[in-house]
Amino acid sequence: MPNARTKLFGVIGDPVGHSLSPVLHNYFLKKYKLNAFYFAFRVVPANLGACVQGAWAMGLAGLNVTLPHKEKVVELVKFRSPEVNLLGVANTLSMREEGVAAFVTDPAGFIASVQPMQPLFRESRVVLFGAGGSARSVAYALSKMGSRELTIVNRTYDRALHLSRFCTERLGFRKVSILGMRDPALNDHILGAQALVNATSIGMAPYVDYSPLPDFSAVSQNHFVYDLVYNPVWTVFLREAKKKGAKVQNGLDMLIYQGLESLQIWMNETYSIARNELNALRIHLSTELQS
Amino acid sequence: MPNARTKLFGVIGDPVGHSLSPVLHNYFLKKYKLNAFYFAFRVVPANLGACVQGAWAMGLAGLNVTLPHKEKVVELVKFRSPEVNLLGVANTLSMREEGVAAFVTDPAGFIASVQPMQPLFRESRVVLFGAGGSARSVAYALSKMGSRELTIVNRTYDRALHLSRFCTERLGFRKVSILGMRDPALNDHILGAQALVNATSIGMAPYVDYSPLPDFSAVSQNHFVYDLVYNPVWTVFLREAKKKGAKVQNGLDMLIYQGLESLQIWMNETYSIARNELNALRIHLSTELQS
Repeated sequence: MPNARTKLFGVIGDPVGHSLSPVLHNYFLKKYKLNAFYFAFRVVPANLGACVQGAWAMGLAGLNVTLPHKEKVVELVKFRSPEVNLLGVANTLSMREEGVAAFVTDPAGFIASVQPMQPLFRESRVVLFGAGGSARSVAYALSKMGSRELTIVNRTYDRALHLSRFCTERLGFRKVSILGMRDPALNDHILGAQALVNATSIGMAPYVDYSPLPDFSAVSQNHFVYDLVYNPVWTVFLREAKKKGAKVQNGLDMLIYQGLESLQIWMNETYSIARNELNALRIHLSTELQS
Repeated sequence: MPNARTKLFGVIGDPVGHSLSPVLHNYFLKKYKLNAFYFAFRVVPANLGACVQGAWAMGLAGLNVTLPHKEKVVELVKFRSPEVNLLGVANTLSMREEGVAAFVTDPAGFIASVQPMQPLFRESRVVLFGAGGSARSVAYALSKMGSRELTIVNRTYDRALHLSRFCTERLGFRKVSILGMRDPALNDHILGAQALVNATSIGMAPYVDYSPLPDFSAVSQNHFVYDLVYNPVWTVFLREAKKKGAKVQNGLDMLIYQGLESLQIWMNETYSIARNELNALRIHLSTELQS
């Protein structure tokens, strides 16, 4: 039970009722024996400023920030990490005596989630689906792992162009191509790539019948196929890629590691998850998704 | 563990580290099987406005308000109960979709705490120590129970005069006297009174050797002597009165009942405590005080 020394964490978003973050973080808090609890707060866009100021005034220990607040929140804090300044998004707020500090742990979460596959990304070419905030974080993570060429597949050209320029000008990609979802050249780009990453919400519940890629004929066992979506655990995108022999991974581990990274920022401590614990946590989260 | 539907309550104050409210309310929340937790938030006066707006923005379910915010908070809310308007203090905020509503549950807490003694207060004369916010709440509660005459004992005359006017003009007391703590007339007033109530913080830890009344010679078994202080459970005021044969009561039950009243406001539900449960709760709270 909370006492006067119990720390309070939470996630703010709208909607936030189906967020896995409370389950994830309360699991961490218990595992690491921290006197703290983690809540979900539904905050509508008009109240974001009041929320950030109020959370600081009340001495909340930290907040995660999810859609639709990840970009807007950057303007509302006193301190920003270099990655927040670079990417223009934040998902982690730390309430410090001097003011609120913003961080973004999605890139570190992505990198930690593909840790065993990291050599594959060195000098790699990657097909990236999406051009929003998640895609930007993934592109940054890919650049840190040594990716050199990117194919951005997106429905709207303008957003893709914006991300494309960011990738060449700020992230050092050697070459960035932009394709529409049904571009005939897409299969050639897939054939030349080592990895495919879905950073769109296509395939996410309740629209589980959709895939960001309509034709899997170019996908093979040479590919690592990654879906940031974790609900459902098996999206059409991953199922079809698996059928073609690709190595596949969903977004659960990225969720886990970005959360762990947030906790490390808040507590100024290092925490680790053993392999068998990671498996238990995946199952715990998947079970929650189905309930 | 909290999930996305867990309600969040808390107390705001400065200091708030030794507040019993988290212990009390988490006991209630568990007892009544409510999916909710209660925290302590230290909020400095300069941040009170940001806190109230932020708590509303984040959809906290409710807050208790303690020193030094009980008066200031009244100006910061959208809705006020008639008692808040009358007394100018609030200790309970309910976050409603349309805005924050303020209530004061101290008077109801006082009345519930003396429930078996209520006939004694009808047409009574009471010696009240103190002239601050707590004394005002007690005076109001006394008036609701039918008290007709009040002797206000206070260190500063101006505050006593202010409360005195309030008692005659707004609460309908027939007669209100003002005495200093060492006024020779005090013993006569005690002899003519049925009850003595300490609504000052004199005798509260860590100043446990002090008493609002220096001379107990006029106190007898005819008196009901009540101390709003509950830390320590036995103040000098109560110990000395007990020695003179008076029936005595400390502030624990008022704390319990004002908290229960707050919970009823927040949940829009009625809750009760059986006699044996009340005893268990008193012991639970007293144990916490000593730890």
